[in-house]
Amino acid sequence: MLTKTPHLFDDATKVTAGDSRWQGQTSEDYWAFVGPFGGCTAATILRALMEHPQAAGDPVAMTVNYCAPIAQGTFDLDVRLVKANRSSQHWSVELSQGGGEVSTLATAAFAERRPSWSHQQAEYPGAKAYEEALPYPTVAAPWVKQYDFRFVEGEPKRGGTGAVETYSKLWIGDRVPRRIDALSLMAISDSFFARIFHARRELVPFGTVSLTTYFHADAADLETEDITRVLGIADAKIFHKSYGDMHGELWSPGGRLLATTTQIAYFKA
Amino acid sequence: MLTKTPHLFDDATKVTAGDSRWQGQTSEDYWAFVGPFGGCTAATILRALMEHPQAAGDPVAMTVNYCAPIAQGTFDLDVRLVKANRSSQHWSVELSQGGGEVSTLATAAFAERRPSWSHQQAEYPGAKAYEEALPYPTVAAPWVKQYDFRFVEGEPKRGGTGAVETYSKLWIGDRVPRRIDALSLMAISDSFFARIFHARRELVPFGTVSLTTYFHADAADLETEDITRVLGIADAKIFHKSYGDMHGELWSPGGRLLATTTQIAYFKA
Repeated sequence: MLTKTPHLFDDATKVTAGDSRWQGQTSEDYWAFVGPFGGCTAATILRALMEHPQAAGDPVAMTVNYCAPIAQGTFDLDVRLVKANRSSQHWSVELSQGGGEVSTLATAAFAERRPSWSHQQAEYPGAKAYEEALPYPTVAAPWVKQYDFRFVEGEPKRGGTGAVETYSKLWIGDRVPRRIDALSLMAISDSFFARIFHARRELVPFGTVSLTTYFHADAADLETEDITRVLGIADAKIFHKSYGDMHGELWSPGGRLLATTTQIAYFKA
Repeated sequence: MLTKTPHLFDDATKVTAGDSRWQGQTSEDYWAFVGPFGGCTAATILRALMEHPQAAGDPVAMTVNYCAPIAQGTFDLDVRLVKANRSSQHWSVELSQGGGEVSTLATAAFAERRPSWSHQQAEYPGAKAYEEALPYPTVAAPWVKQYDFRFVEGEPKRGGTGAVETYSKLWIGDRVPRRIDALSLMAISDSFFARIFHARRELVPFGTVSLTTYFHADAADLETEDITRVLGIADAKIFHKSYGDMHGELWSPGGRLLATTTQIAYFKA
């Protein structure tokens, strides 16, 4: 059963007021090692857009560029509707603190999604049932505790040798169940552990530079799905000269592709 | 042998002067059906960044949001260095015409790429030699004539029935050979035919909404490669409620992954 009390994720991604200027604040619950969990920042920005009085339709694409660390505390969101067409919108958001430089730069496209020919070309990867997979033991960063990660394949290894492995398949849901919506899809798309940790079998300095997520389900679709977790797969294609990529898919347990995501990240190894 | 005279692509992506305000103009040579070829627009924006006096390092990521059609003629590029760190930069560019609304909104990350552990996880797809593949017959849009497309797999079909096919593998180079650099990688990443054309076996109304490309080779790497074509692969995962995705890879003939790309596009079918 879903919780009726406010969910930590909704607290963490809360935004207030404003026409072009919104405010949010970092959450201790979703803190990472040197700043807020990037997925939480992305979801907070998306929430400001979705709650914006001028917003129309559903998010279709969002790109978040992580320019600089965000300090604990409040931040401002400079929200701008760059261009509105009949059935789509393009938004730009700049996150800053205390009137300082931009630390996160995001763009998003919204659209009123109309019925069309519909076809899922990608194949549902399939997995053993969530109940049969083991919860991933909590690790140090607070934000990880807010999720229920259950690896089906490609659990991170520590040490040892062998072929480089970067593929993971896992169930992901909020630790306290919360219905999957565009906000949680946005956050979860940044919740895969860094591929370089998998590849190197150790934690190394790492930071996402740019993250892009496409939404393949609108609010009505997600309401119909009515789920609290997704099956996520993630993999990497290359690590070179201090930057590596990741691409991932978020699936409903019923086999529907809800979102695709990709990111490029800095690493030191 | 490479041409010594100015290449059409360099003409088409030419930009002039300015600190925050640059100018460019559409090219008849790279015209598409209702506006300039999106890859040419993306490359023109990238050129303004790469030629900017404050630019440092190589492009790592670029996202281009196509907000509205661009009319034939000149356009302004409002270029802004949003945030510079020690070894990376985040840029924002807005393209507009005649002081009007923004028609293209782009963000880009640049970085000075340092030596690191290097590993290519993705496997080179392989293909028959370029010389053994047949040039794709020129189609109506002028921009297509600027490229030499040679399909190895997944050539577009017209009519007929059967399983939905969206995968393509093809050699792509400038019709007049030009050494592959970041600019041409950016343009080529938007040169794959719309996946919906492949899926439906017909041309339907289509427009890219957002395009993201990651660069996995810097200028020095590309100089070493010294190539005039890439092996491209592209596929789609889903078409739903008027929007569909595409993801692709651009490989050097020697088997090196140079760029990955993804886009989400509107279609009517």
